[in-house]
Amino acid sequence: MKINGKHYYTVWMDKECRVYMIHQNELPFRFSIFESSNYKTTSWAIKEMVVRGAGAIGITAGFAMAQVFHEYKTNNLNNNFIEEAKMHIAQTRPTARNLFYAVDEVYSAGIEGGYTGAVNRAQELFQEDLEMCKAIGEYGNSLIGSKSRILTHCNAGWLATIDYGTATAPVYLAHDKGIPLHVWVDETRPRNQGSRLTAWELGQNGIRHSLITDNTGGYLMQKKMVDVVMVGSDRTTSTGDVANKIGTYLKALAAHDNNIPFYVL
Amino acid sequence: MKINGKHYYTVWMDKECRVYMIHQNELPFRFSIFESSNYKTTSWAIKEMVVRGAGAIGITAGFAMAQVFHEYKTNNLNNNFIEEAKMHIAQTRPTARNLFYAVDEVYSAGIEGGYTGAVNRAQELFQEDLEMCKAIGEYGNSLIGSKSRILTHCNAGWLATIDYGTATAPVYLAHDKGIPLHVWVDETRPRNQGSRLTAWELGQNGIRHSLITDNTGGYLMQKKMVDVVMVGSDRTTSTGDVANKIGTYLKALAAHDNNIPFYVL
Repeated sequence: MKINGKHYYTVWMDKECRVYMIHQNELPFRFSIFESSNYKTTSWAIKEMVVRGAGAIGITAGFAMAQVFHEYKTNNLNNNFIEEAKMHIAQTRPTARNLFYAVDEVYSAGIEGGYTGAVNRAQELFQEDLEMCKAIGEYGNSLIGSKSRILTHCNAGWLATIDYGTATAPVYLAHDKGIPLHVWVDETRPRNQGSRLTAWELGQNGIRHSLITDNTGGYLMQKKMVDVVMVGSDRTTSTGDVANKIGTYLKALAAHDNNIPFYVL
Repeated sequence: MKINGKHYYTVWMDKECRVYMIHQNELPFRFSIFESSNYKTTSWAIKEMVVRGAGAIGITAGFAMAQVFHEYKTNNLNNNFIEEAKMHIAQTRPTARNLFYAVDEVYSAGIEGGYTGAVNRAQELFQEDLEMCKAIGEYGNSLIGSKSRILTHCNAGWLATIDYGTATAPVYLAHDKGIPLHVWVDETRPRNQGSRLTAWELGQNGIRHSLITDNTGGYLMQKKMVDVVMVGSDRTTSTGDVANKIGTYLKALAAHDNNIPFYVL
């Protein structure tokens, strides 16, 4: 997606294993890139929410694990270093399933294929996240059809992934096709991810939106001013239950009470 | 109720027709009394939310109408003054039913009984509000029994009336009887009446409470951490439908979904 007209990913890694992240704690007041040359700094960035959102955290943790193999090779360290570093990364955000998955994947690839194997796997995960979000967007588009007034909670936007986002992926794809849209953005107290991040990224990409308090959505649904609710998922169980940012449940109840489709992407 | 250990009403009028109000726009940062010697200043205070809450607005508007008759008598004005002043007061808060009621009552009493009639009726309304809130508290107490974990939205506390409040009246009466309580206080965005007013008045009166974001209540109900929800009402129809601060509906849905009693006081 775009910032000031230029394309960016939320996080990326260069050939020298330097990791770059949009500094999300500074948004929307300041746009800056946080740069990390080692796994400890990258871990710190995850812990302090420089980067956040399940997808983006996973990719960043995978990059951190690749940095471990880079440091291991460059400084000729012993095997304990890899094990300890892996644990260190895993402890940054204890609820983030994507994080454990990415760390394990890159670790296994590194044990098997060394530094190059780790880096390649980390970049593959990056590419997979991109493609999954785009696929979510395409599927979401087929669901929403011409429903143009979308309510969302928290940030499941492109800042929560590498690009496109999950809940916002259909929005961006529809916008690219010229379909007129309006997004109701829940403020999302207490950390205000809606007002700080979702409203900002939609604005940067030219999507019409209104920032609303978390109390407002129910009223808008009663007044038939919402066509569809779309949110992300922090965790989804095998039976289809979903855990997501606090407040999602209240919006699901209101959507149900007003016969408005509610999708978790 | 008490502030720094001393008893106060939310608004009152002395024998010189001076009206005093707790300056609610300055809470919780500063406790001060706003004083008004004429109906225009009192009207301004209603409009600017120095005083707010359906009950308190009504009483204040009745006092303003009494001030009209005071000014009429003192300055020997013509009858147009009374009519124009009545309209001026009525336009301060166009949604406040209590306001129209009090203005009409004091106006009629003034037309019939002059200055003294107007003042007496305004003070009667003050006393009636007090007694009604206390009666709500006693009835509410019989409903909640030993249910000790109460969730409330916005401020239907004593600051919204003259004393006791509506939704909080059972809380204060139960507390006086030594019944242990804990109140979950919704922040109540966008104006934060919960964090600014309800949490403050409960704290001043020694009631245990936790300030929570508006998103939190649904989760607490799912986790069986709420025994009863009690809110006020901005308007109640003859059929029992209720209009109240935005967000009340979402909490009602969550209470229903979790079989938790929900009372409008």
